Amino acid sequence: IIRKALTEEKRVSTKTSAADLVTETDHLVEDLIISELRERFPSHRFIAEEAAASGAKCVLTHSPTWIIDPIDGTCNFVHRFPTVAVSIGFAVRQELEFGVIYHCTEERLYTGRRGRGAFCNGQRLRVSGETDLSKALVLTEIGPKRDPATLKLFLSNMERLLHAKAHGVRVIGSSTLALCHLASGAADAYYQFGLHCWDLAAATVIIREAGGIVIDTSGGPLDLMACRVVAASTREMAMLIAQALQTINYGRDDEK
Amino acid sequence: IIRKALTEEKRVSTKTSAADLVTETDHLVEDLIISELRERFPSHRFIAEEAAASGAKCVLTHSPTWIIDPIDGTCNFVHRFPTVAVSIGFAVRQELEFGVIYHCTEERLYTGRRGRGAFCNGQRLRVSGETDLSKALVLTEIGPKRDPATLKLFLSNMERLLHAKAHGVRVIGSSTLALCHLASGAADAYYQFGLHCWDLAAATVIIREAGGIVIDTSGGPLDLMACRVVAASTREMAMLIAQALQTINYGRDDEK
Repeated sequence: IIRKALTEEKRVSTKTSAADLVTETDHLVEDLIISELRERFPSHRFIAEEAAASGAKCVLTHSPTWIIDPIDGTCNFVHRFPTVAVSIGFAVRQELEFGVIYHCTEERLYTGRRGRGAFCNGQRLRVSGETDLSKALVLTEIGPKRDPATLKLFLSNMERLLHAKAHGVRVIGSSTLALCHLASGAADAYYQFGLHCWDLAAATVIIREAGGIVIDTSGGPLDLMACRVVAASTREMAMLIAQALQTINYGRDDEK
Repeated sequence: IIRKALTEEKRVSTKTSAADLVTETDHLVEDLIISELRERFPSHRFIAEEAAASGAKCVLTHSPTWIIDPIDGTCNFVHRFPTVAVSIGFAVRQELEFGVIYHCTEERLYTGRRGRGAFCNGQRLRVSGETDLSKALVLTEIGPKRDPATLKLFLSNMERLLHAKAHGVRVIGSSTLALCHLASGAADAYYQFGLHCWDLAAATVIIREAGGIVIDTSGGPLDLMACRVVAASTREMAMLIAQALQTINYGRDDEK
């Protein structure tokens, strides 16, 4: 559906800001995934990006829960910039059990299952193991808020990492695919304020199973609903990044 | 050669700064391209990234001249981040005649020939035609200079475009592939200070043949040796970007 839609004209709407886009395809893909899963698992719960945007509560209970981003990289998708993914994570008793992320145009399927490893098209994934920030390739995303104060903090965080002599900072427009690059060893760290639980659920399992670390930007344990994350190839790298960052407040997914 | 090297450990050296990297593979690929071309065209001249780094002069004469970047995205290459290209442009009487850019991991060959169109794997390329900066996806690169004053200017330029409500800014780590995204309509503008004639030569033909504009950051005609560029889907968009930018001085390729 997404590959076909990439070749067609799109009707685009905005959500929280002019940079927060949604299309009919986001809704179509989300509805398809949920209806297929609900048929097989009628008692399961769902947290999904477009349902949340329409007012559904994002509350992670102990019930088996599917956490879905139908199109991660919607701005890329609107522009036909070919970095777009579908992300589906699954949690039971608030523990992430598995995740799948599909890079639609390059047909790469990333999978991770707790205790069973992470793979891309069947090939085992391993993080780089890098601990030195001055040898790191770091990924981030701008986030949907674009008011002057938020932009200042976003750019100041990027400046701090470049001052720390990170090899480079990349912004590819898809949190989940950026996190997959980290899992595959092609980047050494990722941080973001303003992402959501559906950007993180699947990727967190994949990164952990590839040997990487996913924590809160405070340096403490990941809070899936806190709209912020540091992920890295090693705990040392994750702590260096967390210490460098100034907080950008995006609220919580479970308080919206 | 590059795909094979992406699977192997690399010895990395630095050039002008800790962020300006080179590997044995850059040299190997450049030597191979030049030796093959020289055998067929013994009277032609060459401008190439690693020869220039070793002190060869970058002077574009009226002679037929090949302008070569053996690995664009060397920092990506070092990290196995799969956004890496080979770029070869060709000029006669200081006019760019054709260019080829090869995305090594995705096996996409972009080609452009003056007056004959631009293509990717045989499919015709067209720019988006977007004129409105508030609907634009904009690409840039950080550049090799990382002193505090240069970083401030780089980040301030990004801030200006985000304030102007560009949909997004992307940094993918390869100037030539960013420019190919512009040519294919997947992005609406590109700007950079600190790129070189070998980053621009092939891409300029491809973008122009796809209907796009390549100019100097001053708003005047492109100067291939000036280490700066604005490229866009339309002249309106190019001028909006040029007017928003503060200059970062990187000197000239032909004065090094």
